[in-house]
Amino acid sequence: MTVTEAKEKLNELELREFAYNHAMGILYYDGTTGAPKASSIPRGKTMGVLAGEAYKISTDKEAVSLLGFLREHADELDADTLRRVELREKGLKELNAVPLETYIEYTELMNEADAVWHEAKEKSDYPMFEPVLKKVIDFTKLFAEKVAPEKSPYDYCLDKYEEGLTMAKCDDFFAKLKERIVPLVKRVQEAEQPDDACAKVFFPIEKQREFSDILMERIGIPRDRCAIGETEHPFTTDFSRNDVRITTHYHEDAFLSSMYSVIHEGGHALYELGGDERFSYTGLSGGVTMGIHESQSRFFENIIGRSREFIGLIYPDAVRLCPELGKYSVEQLYRAANKAEPSLIRTEADELTYALHIMVRYDMERQMINGSVNMKELPEMWNALYKEYLGVTVPDDKRGILQDSHWAGAGIGYFPSYALGSAYGAQYLAKIRESLDFEKTVASGDLKPIRDWLGDRIWKYASSKKPEWILNNAMEAPFDPKYYLDYLEGKMKDVYGF
Amino acid sequence: MTVTEAKEKLNELELREFAYNHAMGILYYDGTTGAPKASSIPRGKTMGVLAGEAYKISTDKEAVSLLGFLREHADELDADTLRRVELREKGLKELNAVPLETYIEYTELMNEADAVWHEAKEKSDYPMFEPVLKKVIDFTKLFAEKVAPEKSPYDYCLDKYEEGLTMAKCDDFFAKLKERIVPLVKRVQEAEQPDDACAKVFFPIEKQREFSDILMERIGIPRDRCAIGETEHPFTTDFSRNDVRITTHYHEDAFLSSMYSVIHEGGHALYELGGDERFSYTGLSGGVTMGIHESQSRFFENIIGRSREFIGLIYPDAVRLCPELGKYSVEQLYRAANKAEPSLIRTEADELTYALHIMVRYDMERQMINGSVNMKELPEMWNALYKEYLGVTVPDDKRGILQDSHWAGAGIGYFPSYALGSAYGAQYLAKIRESLDFEKTVASGDLKPIRDWLGDRIWKYASSKKPEWILNNAMEAPFDPKYYLDYLEGKMKDVYGF
Repeated sequence: MTVTEAKEKLNELELREFAYNHAMGILYYDGTTGAPKASSIPRGKTMGVLAGEAYKISTDKEAVSLLGFLREHADELDADTLRRVELREKGLKELNAVPLETYIEYTELMNEADAVWHEAKEKSDYPMFEPVLKKVIDFTKLFAEKVAPEKSPYDYCLDKYEEGLTMAKCDDFFAKLKERIVPLVKRVQEAEQPDDACAKVFFPIEKQREFSDILMERIGIPRDRCAIGETEHPFTTDFSRNDVRITTHYHEDAFLSSMYSVIHEGGHALYELGGDERFSYTGLSGGVTMGIHESQSRFFENIIGRSREFIGLIYPDAVRLCPELGKYSVEQLYRAANKAEPSLIRTEADELTYALHIMVRYDMERQMINGSVNMKELPEMWNALYKEYLGVTVPDDKRGILQDSHWAGAGIGYFPSYALGSAYGAQYLAKIRESLDFEKTVASGDLKPIRDWLGDRIWKYASSKKPEWILNNAMEAPFDPKYYLDYLEGKMKDVYGF
Repeated sequence: MTVTEAKEKLNELELREFAYNHAMGILYYDGTTGAPKASSIPRGKTMGVLAGEAYKISTDKEAVSLLGFLREHADELDADTLRRVELREKGLKELNAVPLETYIEYTELMNEADAVWHEAKEKSDYPMFEPVLKKVIDFTKLFAEKVAPEKSPYDYCLDKYEEGLTMAKCDDFFAKLKERIVPLVKRVQEAEQPDDACAKVFFPIEKQREFSDILMERIGIPRDRCAIGETEHPFTTDFSRNDVRITTHYHEDAFLSSMYSVIHEGGHALYELGGDERFSYTGLSGGVTMGIHESQSRFFENIIGRSREFIGLIYPDAVRLCPELGKYSVEQLYRAANKAEPSLIRTEADELTYALHIMVRYDMERQMINGSVNMKELPEMWNALYKEYLGVTVPDDKRGILQDSHWAGAGIGYFPSYALGSAYGAQYLAKIRESLDFEKTVASGDLKPIRDWLGDRIWKYASSKKPEWILNNAMEAPFDPKYYLDYLEGKMKDVYGF
């Protein structure tokens, strides 16, 4: 076999893997959008079969010997191929950690857990969710032990979503955040609160759907490559740069909820849609880590979407679709959209207190994975942490421990990337300001210069570079949370006038 | 290997096949509903891979030797297993007819053809569709030649959708239909036409969506196992008895169009949903032939849905959702829904002239497959036949040869099953009347006795019996189109009062 032949075989192999992931992704997406309830039974069967086949394809003798051959010829490989080899080696280690049957069981659990979580959340019934959460935790610990026995299990989880992230780094990061966010929250609570009546106007769902289309157009999403669906918990899923889906959830009396979901998920989508075509159907397609991903989504949601200029931009359409909003000014809407107030629901949290929601989850996960917890006491633990960090009383599990889908999807270790991503985004902004007038660009309605900046420095690389490389390429400096804290302080001063 | 072990292996094999079909089915359904346009590119890649894998699973040495073993032990097998063996043998003959590469090419063509047809129809651009239609015809001829060289190619096509159907039988059937339908159309055209202003009221799409839910409930569709989507051309697709999807297409100023699509597809869905649980994930799941399938859909659409009693039943909800309808009486709506008038679009054709639309397609297909046609002349041929059979002038290809999705899906030989199904349905009705008061049952709003009759005699058998067996089980007599013609005559007399 020549290196050229091996590279062709690698392309074939990764196309096959793409196909299985694509099929399973569509089955999952369909399961959360258009599918009837009882479909979870056949979907579980199919997911089990496909996951088993995909596992075999990735781990069989042929795939392993191909990888061995490429590793032997590492010095003849271009950078992209070498990165593919490295990612495959990492993935193989993960797949080989447990036997096929365990892997199939895990995939079937993922399907079941999602359905159970949906129902449990609807009924605010934690005991219903407890057994699957227990299984998720057990699986996570098992994977951690098998894949990275040298690490603390929760460090394994963190690294999965943000390569290189550790508890030590998180502790430092969150400590810095706490130091300035906590007093800032206090100042904000002592200040006069913006009137947010404009955020509570009745905005018919049918009209909000139209509004979503406008928002997607405003941030520059090519609709021939990206569709929007409706789910309980908004998410983004990508099948290729030619097919990305975002979802949202509408509330008639809280249109900002869906508006910021659409912009947030739209940021994820733009990242996926902006990958270089040459990475399609290979292991290098798609965003590199969740931290980088969240830095895009939260950049669009908060830094662009909650800016005075962006709100001014979408205001006329919002008023056209919901005339009652016309009673309020752009300034009132801007202040309402930036009102900071400790609250119960992470996805609806303001920019300032958001990190505190993440800290609750960070503490919970750490104990769930590293320690030994009594499953029955998790809701109490959750509620106590909300009291401590945010000063709020959790009235029920629906608005407490059951609010997020992440744990049902085994996404333990994911949450810290939201806070990190927010902080990365603020540092991008500081860098962007060096070459363009951010406010003026947003106000113009043509966000292309901003998309180009992100596209050239981040999006186009997809997974072909490590996150540190990408961050450095974007920021041209080491990551420093001070940009984020300065940004938050500036925002709060502007909104609250202190 | 014991017979018991072989049966277990058969279950495993058919579960794997189910999984691939399920995944490809969801990809297709998603492609026609929520997917963005450019998704056809990655979908084509994935379909190609999955179809190739599924082909291998069904045709590999292991599957072939298992089948051989079961055939050798045929006398030890129960009836269900024997039927599975027979169906597998038939399927294998089909799959082995062409090499894997041809099969993959064909699957990729199916994906491409659907997208091209959608665009060509939208633009009313037959030349855009011509090259893929040519490929579809070539593939169909190739399959016919390889699988059933002893038959005329179009007989092979007919048998594919209705086991045992031939051109000879179709000629006889259509001749009988022509003999009585043509003079009936003439009488109807000479009579005073019902005023169908009530069918043209403005009925907002949002309200029609609500109406669809009511219609599905009225005919007794369990919504936890069946969802509804929106597509250009309505269809039904089943993944298992726990997951069936129907689709419809809304027109603001022609609510009957979607109403009868929903009831028609609902009839297909009920058949799929009514299969015995034990056939799930085996080769015996799902409806047996298209003729039997259409006998369910058209029974619900026309015999139930266009009855005076059913229209009376849904009238109050229709008026609630579209108050303008209240200006018209149930009787006016009944007559409008049964107005017979030669027209352009098959799916919107009335019950009486419907068979004439089928005859056009039957003649076209026969020539396309058996003869050698000039592809460029197909629209002219279509238009000439519409003139001859229906007396109407086709204004453009969108409302002519491009109106149906069937040919883009290689469904050549499918159309006659619509007319046959309609005729089967009328004979069921005659039989049903022996044991219950049909009109009274429909008027009561509780269709369970009718569903039970169909379920016990037809639905529950899924594909475990041949269509002749099922027809005989239902009708307790040989099939005779006179029931259909009597039914049509009775209906027209009632509506037109002659």
